Amino acid sequence: MKLFIANQNYSSWSLRAWLIFSQFKLEVEVTKLKLFTEGFYNALEGITPTAKVPTLVDDDVTVWDSLAILEYVNEQYLQGKAWPSSTVEKAKARAIAAEMHSGFFDLRNELPMNIRALRKVELSDGARKDIARIDAIWSEQAEQFPKGWLFGEWSIADAMYAPVALRFKTYGVELSDDAAAYQKKVLASTSLQHWLEDASKETDIVEEDEAGDEIG
Amino acid sequence: MKLFIANQNYSSWSLRAWLIFSQFKLEVEVTKLKLFTEGFYNALEGITPTAKVPTLVDDDVTVWDSLAILEYVNEQYLQGKAWPSSTVEKAKARAIAAEMHSGFFDLRNELPMNIRALRKVELSDGARKDIARIDAIWSEQAEQFPKGWLFGEWSIADAMYAPVALRFKTYGVELSDDAAAYQKKVLASTSLQHWLEDASKETDIVEEDEAGDEIG
Repeated sequence: MKLFIANQNYSSWSLRAWLIFSQFKLEVEVTKLKLFTEGFYNALEGITPTAKVPTLVDDDVTVWDSLAILEYVNEQYLQGKAWPSSTVEKAKARAIAAEMHSGFFDLRNELPMNIRALRKVELSDGARKDIARIDAIWSEQAEQFPKGWLFGEWSIADAMYAPVALRFKTYGVELSDDAAAYQKKVLASTSLQHWLEDASKETDIVEEDEAGDEIG
Repeated sequence: MKLFIANQNYSSWSLRAWLIFSQFKLEVEVTKLKLFTEGFYNALEGITPTAKVPTLVDDDVTVWDSLAILEYVNEQYLQGKAWPSSTVEKAKARAIAAEMHSGFFDLRNELPMNIRALRKVELSDGARKDIARIDAIWSEQAEQFPKGWLFGEWSIADAMYAPVALRFKTYGVELSDDAAAYQKKVLASTSLQHWLEDASKETDIVEEDEAGDEIG
């Protein structure tokens, strides 16, 4: 399999798709493209119809959306184990993952993923509401932390929310104790540590994703 | 199963989820709530954490997102047949469905679903780009029409794009011949005809979803 991703410091959707390969130690050839460069569009031409990342190529299969990639890899290579095994839990995990996939626009706009930064931002009411909702989603699964993930074993729901744990760190967002425990678990995980290490080697600045004022 | 939906004239996400029940003649108790009314929020309190429709309740399972509902129903009641059986086609169908689920914001903002209306709108460049992309998605599957759906048999991808066929009608959007053939198929389908019949009985006006100028 080949996975196209973008700048690891900034690309939250790339991180979501990448995590399933890392968590399950699946072999994948990762190609990193620089956002908003000619090379980015050239590399994806003829591969993805939307010139967006992440895009997965697996022989004659091409998937150009993070959630669709996660579902595909789960079915083809993981016998479905990247969703909770219980029907009730799986339905909930899917609803939560879909909520992230299609929503939280204010959070995404005002607090772009920017791993290396520590920033202060003024939050709109919409962003505050998004943060409260995510805090509630995480806190509701509190009995799982710190040992387990949102649904005990790692699942696609965790992939979808991993970038949010990073955003909350960058912008110093205060969380409830339960939500903070989940954030801590995400940030300390081996997969995320590998991503952070690679991200820390990047020096490109993408102005579109720079928000807020430096702290200190 | 119980499905909560909103005004059929306006609620495109409700239509998407509802279609799978209609297409496969699955028994479901539908509760229609009026958008932006107190009754709407009261009815969903304690059922869905986000007070959004569609929401599906199936015994102890609650799913509050259209795509998650479609995936759930497909797995629990349809043995997976609401996705194409071929791995390649299924991956493509999922990518296309996910693209609709997470994108096309300009189209969604500027051309809200409003079944009973015939309108003229000024389109932004973004909306034009969205329309062109959807035309391309549909046209690429042209060998299927008019006999078949996007992937031959009806699939979740068709559910996701059905409201778009209606929007294109409301706002008189011109399509390529291939895309127009698909639109025609969608609009003539038995399921959609049932929805349109119910929608035509509604008289409530939701100002938030009224866009453009009346034609004629």
